[in-house]
This record gives sequence, C-alpha cells and structure tokens, in this order.
Amino acid sequence: MHKKLFIPGPTEVRQDILDAQATPLIGHRTKAFTELYTGIIDKLKELLETNNFITVLTASGTIFMEGAIRNCVNNDVLCCVNGAFSDRWFKIAQKCDRNSDVITVDWGKAIKPEMVDEKLKSKKYEALTLVQNETSTGVRNPIEDIAKVMKNYPDVLFLVDTVSSLMGDKINIEELGIDICLASSQKAFALPPGLALCIVSDKALEKAKTVKGRGHYCDFVGLKDYFDKKGQTPSTPAITLMYAMDKQLDKIKAEGMGNRFKRHAEMAKYVQDWGKKYFSMFSEPGYESVTVSCMNNTRKISVADLNTELGKRGYAISNGYGKLKELAFRIAHMGDLTLDEIKELINNINEILGI
Amino acid sequence: MHKKLFIPGPTEVRQDILDAQATPLIGHRTKAFTELYTGIIDKLKELLETNNFITVLTASGTIFMEGAIRNCVNNDVLCCVNGAFSDRWFKIAQKCDRNSDVITVDWGKAIKPEMVDEKLKSKKYEALTLVQNETSTGVRNPIEDIAKVMKNYPDVLFLVDTVSSLMGDKINIEELGIDICLASSQKAFALPPGLALCIVSDKALEKAKTVKGRGHYCDFVGLKDYFDKKGQTPSTPAITLMYAMDKQLDKIKAEGMGNRFKRHAEMAKYVQDWGKKYFSMFSEPGYESVTVSCMNNTRKISVADLNTELGKRGYAISNGYGKLKELAFRIAHMGDLTLDEIKELINNINEILGI
Repeated sequence: MHKKLFIPGPTEVRQDILDAQATPLIGHRTKAFTELYTGIIDKLKELLETNNFITVLTASGTIFMEGAIRNCVNNDVLCCVNGAFSDRWFKIAQKCDRNSDVITVDWGKAIKPEMVDEKLKSKKYEALTLVQNETSTGVRNPIEDIAKVMKNYPDVLFLVDTVSSLMGDKINIEELGIDICLASSQKAFALPPGLALCIVSDKALEKAKTVKGRGHYCDFVGLKDYFDKKGQTPSTPAITLMYAMDKQLDKIKAEGMGNRFKRHAEMAKYVQDWGKKYFSMFSEPGYESVTVSCMNNTRKISVADLNTELGKRGYAISNGYGKLKELAFRIAHMGDLTLDEIKELINNINEILGI
Repeated sequence: MHKKLFIPGPTEVRQDILDAQATPLIGHRTKAFTELYTGIIDKLKELLETNNFITVLTASGTIFMEGAIRNCVNNDVLCCVNGAFSDRWFKIAQKCDRNSDVITVDWGKAIKPEMVDEKLKSKKYEALTLVQNETSTGVRNPIEDIAKVMKNYPDVLFLVDTVSSLMGDKINIEELGIDICLASSQKAFALPPGLALCIVSDKALEKAKTVKGRGHYCDFVGLKDYFDKKGQTPSTPAITLMYAMDKQLDKIKAEGMGNRFKRHAEMAKYVQDWGKKYFSMFSEPGYESVTVSCMNNTRKISVADLNTELGKRGYAISNGYGKLKELAFRIAHMGDLTLDEIKELINNINEILGI
C-alpha cells in the first residue's frame, strides 16, 4: 500500500503529475524541447514574480548550495547555522576550500537580524548563506528582517536556500535582494525529486565572472549564456521530470499563488495548534515554518512505532532529524496536500495515541 | 505523433519503462529506498562485471567529467581530444582551474596508443581523460590498446567517459584498469535522462582523499562513505527515475549482456554497410562506434529536410554535431532498438532520398 507522504520531502505527488513523466521522449536539442524549457522558465518567473535569471538543473537542491559557493565566493563567506541543512551549507563551503565563518544558534532557534549585523560589521565577507526554512527543525528564519540588514552591506551577496518553502511560503525574491535563491522540485512544488532550481541576480552573475574554478555543470555564467543563446540547458536535462514540472506549474497557476500560500498557512496553523495542545513546538515561538512542523516528543511516545502504525493506515510522517530522531517528530504540510488530508492524518495520530 | 528516437541520446525508451516512473513516491531515508538503491547497485555490478564502487547520481553524465577532475587531479591532467565531448572534458578541466594539456587529432580520427605513450613519457601527469566513444563523430577510441600503455604509468589515473557506449559496447572496466568510468542513463541503457553513473576504482578513491576542494555533491569519498553506512545517497535522489532504472536493469539481465552486445554490433554493421554504400563514413576505418554511426554527407542532401520528412513518418535521426551540422549526419543504434527497427528506418531514408 502506498503511504501518503507527510514527510518534508519528497512530498506527495498527484497521480496525473506522476503520469506526465510517462510521455515519450523528445530530443533535447529540438525546437519542441526549447518550447518546453522556455515555457517552464516563463511560468516560474510569473509565479515567483521575478525577472532574475532562472535555471532548472538535473540535480538535488544541494548542488546549488555548492554552486552558490563556487560562483559567488573567492575567499570569505559567512554561514548562518541553526539546523542540519544550514550546517551542511557551512560544511560545503569548507569542502570547496573557502574561509567559512559561522553564526550559530541552537537547533530550534531562529537567526536574528542583529546577529547578522554584528558579524557583518566585524569583517568583510563576500556572501552570507541562510537557509530560510530549516527543514530539520521547522524554523522559519525571519528573512524579511535579515534582508533589511543585508541592504546595509551591498557588497555581501545574499545566498538563500528556500528548498522546503518556495511555492508554499511567500518569498519576495527581488524585494528582499536575494542574490541566489535555490530550491528543489520535491518539496512545496509537489513534484518528484530530480530537478533543482536557482534564481540568480545580476549582481551574483557579475560576481561569478570574477571567481575562478567555477567549473561547468553549475557555472551560472555558462548556464545563462547557453540559455540566452539556445533556450536550452548545456547538459542533457531530465526531460520526463520537466514534463511533470510543466504540467504542475499550470496547476499551480490555476490554484493561484495567493490561494496556495493561504492553504499552506491554514495547514500549518492546524498542525501547530494541535502540536501545542498535545506536545510542544520544537521551533522558537513566532518562527514556526509554514511548510513543516517539528514537535517536541514531550509525551515520550515511540515515534518509530507511531510511524509503523500510521504506515498500516497509509500515511507517513518523519522522525526528528539526526540527533533529534526520537526526541522530536515532524509533519510536513506542503505541496498539494489539503487541510482535509491534514485533518485526516491528525485524527489517525490521535486515534493511535489515544489522545 | 511521437518520433522514434534514432538520435545519440536521449534514446528511445519503451513504454513500460516510462510507465515505471509513475509509481507513487517513497521516502529516500526509508528501508524501501535502501532496498531499491542497493538493488540497483548490485544489478549494475553484476551486469558490468565489476566490484569497483558504483554511484548513481541525479545529474547528466557531464557532472562526472567535472567530478573526475575535482576528485582525481590536483594540478596536471592530460586530455585526449578528438571530438566535441572530449573537448568538453578538456575545457571542464580548465574551468576547474587545472593545468590541462591535450593530445589532439582531427574530428573523425581516433586517439592511438602511441600518442598517449609519447605524451605520458614527456611529463608527469596525475590523470588521463579519454572519451571512449565520441558521440559527436561516431569514433570508438581503441581503449583496449590505450589501456595497455596506461599499465606502464600506474601513477596516472585512467579517466574514461563511456556515456554513449556503456551497456551497448563491452567495456572490461577492471581488466582495462579504468579508474573512473562514467556514463549516463539516456544512451545505451535506454532510460530517460537524469541519472549519471560513475564506477570508481580504489586507486581513484585513495587519490581523491589527497585532493582539496572536492566539494560535496560529487565527492567520491563522501558518496562512498554514505553508501557504505546507509545504502543511500547523501542528497535526495531522483526516485522515479530509479524506479525506471531498476526495471530496465532486470530487462537487460533477461536479454543477457552477450546478446545485447551482439544486437548492437549487428545494428552497427547494418547501418555502416549502408553508410559506406550510399555515403562514406566520417569515422576512421576500423574505429567505428557500435552505438552511433556518423556518415559524411557525400550526396549533399539537406539533412534538415531529410529529418523533417522522417519526422512525418515518426522517426528522428541527428544532424552532424556542431560544425558538422550539414556536412554529416548521425544514426544512433543503441539501447533497446532492434535490427528490424533499424532496417525500417533505413528503408524509409532510402525511400525519401530515392536511393
């Protein structure tokens, strides 16, 4: 039996979108592919309300964490770390042999604008990395307030991971001055995994031209040149995944972004009201994510057993990430899931736990 | 109307394999995914007759050209260039800021073992790059003879691109001492694009540990550590493409690798006999690829018009690559295509051209 996915990626993908992948292939150097790909980019620009350069690459979103470093940093980068994925970005910067400093707060806490200001005052950095929505802890960092600080440091590129929020949480990419906004298909887009997106500002593209050793696969300058010239990608794209993305973007447009954000906010409120009533939230009050909720396991239930029981009923949720495995648990409410489906899940959890 | 693909990637994918992608998703940190992924790796090891480490990454094959350089070369690499893809590897090495020398021969010619020997004698290199099957020219480089030379230079890693040949052309990975063997799903595997494979020797893994700035997404050491520990990939994999790969590997096993190689050889002979009769081969005699044939346009036909006419009948072939656009044309005979389908295509071409 299929378990409906209430995990923070991959999220549940509707059957018509899965089926779109089964369309026979076309060559990726044909006019038909150019139409498909430029159509996708145009739809993304419209839905995300940006004119920045957008590239869709065959990869997981992680590739753009690495790409952002290799394209935008010669030497010094400052990484905001408050969970597993922001810590990964910091480690990736080190693995790319860059000087990497950190702003660290405990898991579950948010990065505050004054922390960023203090650190940026103290040393000249080329870029700041921020995971806007920490999938591991259910924390939404206050990107709007951090963006205000960033405006005072126009030489510092603003690199933002919105992997588990873009399309579910409103991100004003240009207004916030985000230079790199990265995301991936298997989260709030409600698509199968395999496509990563990156929205790149002109400032980031200019900077990239000054950075050596950018490589090829994730070279923003090369990706943009190729797109401008041919409306295609330099390397063979995952065509069947693009069929699915094209169809899904139409469905998202039909829903309307406003409705989509509202639906996410309603699902988040429902889960978090429940979480506060029966458990407590792992995330700092006021900084709860709208796409994934992380609850402290205050009732000391066996999260593994709960998931086994849920599995028998056709649902899957997530344990706490890494070191939080049995100390917390996560329910994702993103993508195409509805409030009714969330209620159904919660009713089943209540039944299983007898609460 | 779908055009059956006789182009050198993506190749024609059978409907049952396309349909396998539409299977509902599972979490990539579940036992079910571990079983799927380790199953795929075991099947690949059996079919390719190797015990070397194999990783399957969400990407086009190009990523491993870059990964091979970033993992295996600190300073100096020697690149064999005899077509567009081998030239790409050389350029990627430069883009990764490595000292890159070349052995160049004209497009259509093969790299000879004595050229490699001469160059390796003259300078100390850390690695040699070779595209075994040049998709752009239809040339199969004599890898068996080059491998014999490489045995005299055990400190030089042997990096080989088999993107358009692996699973259609017999490559004895371990016997030939190939340290990096890279390929991708959309060629002789007859799968949709989006998955790249890399087969990595212990020697390459040891070398990688000494190379700084390997990054994360394509770090062979990290990929192997994660696989050894969890039987999974560090980043979210393209699960639906893996469903298709898993099913296709079973079908390949059922056909038998010997039969598969024989079928490819028969298709190649048929196309090349025809090519020699009505045109001439662009590839040097004796070095014709078994997966893709490149014909000189000696009859000065319009390749574009031929393809338009073929399109109306439900077939697609390729023009010459890049600068060869109208000077040559290519017919791919790889993946799951049969000799009967090749004959049908050739009959249609003969009819259209009136030959």
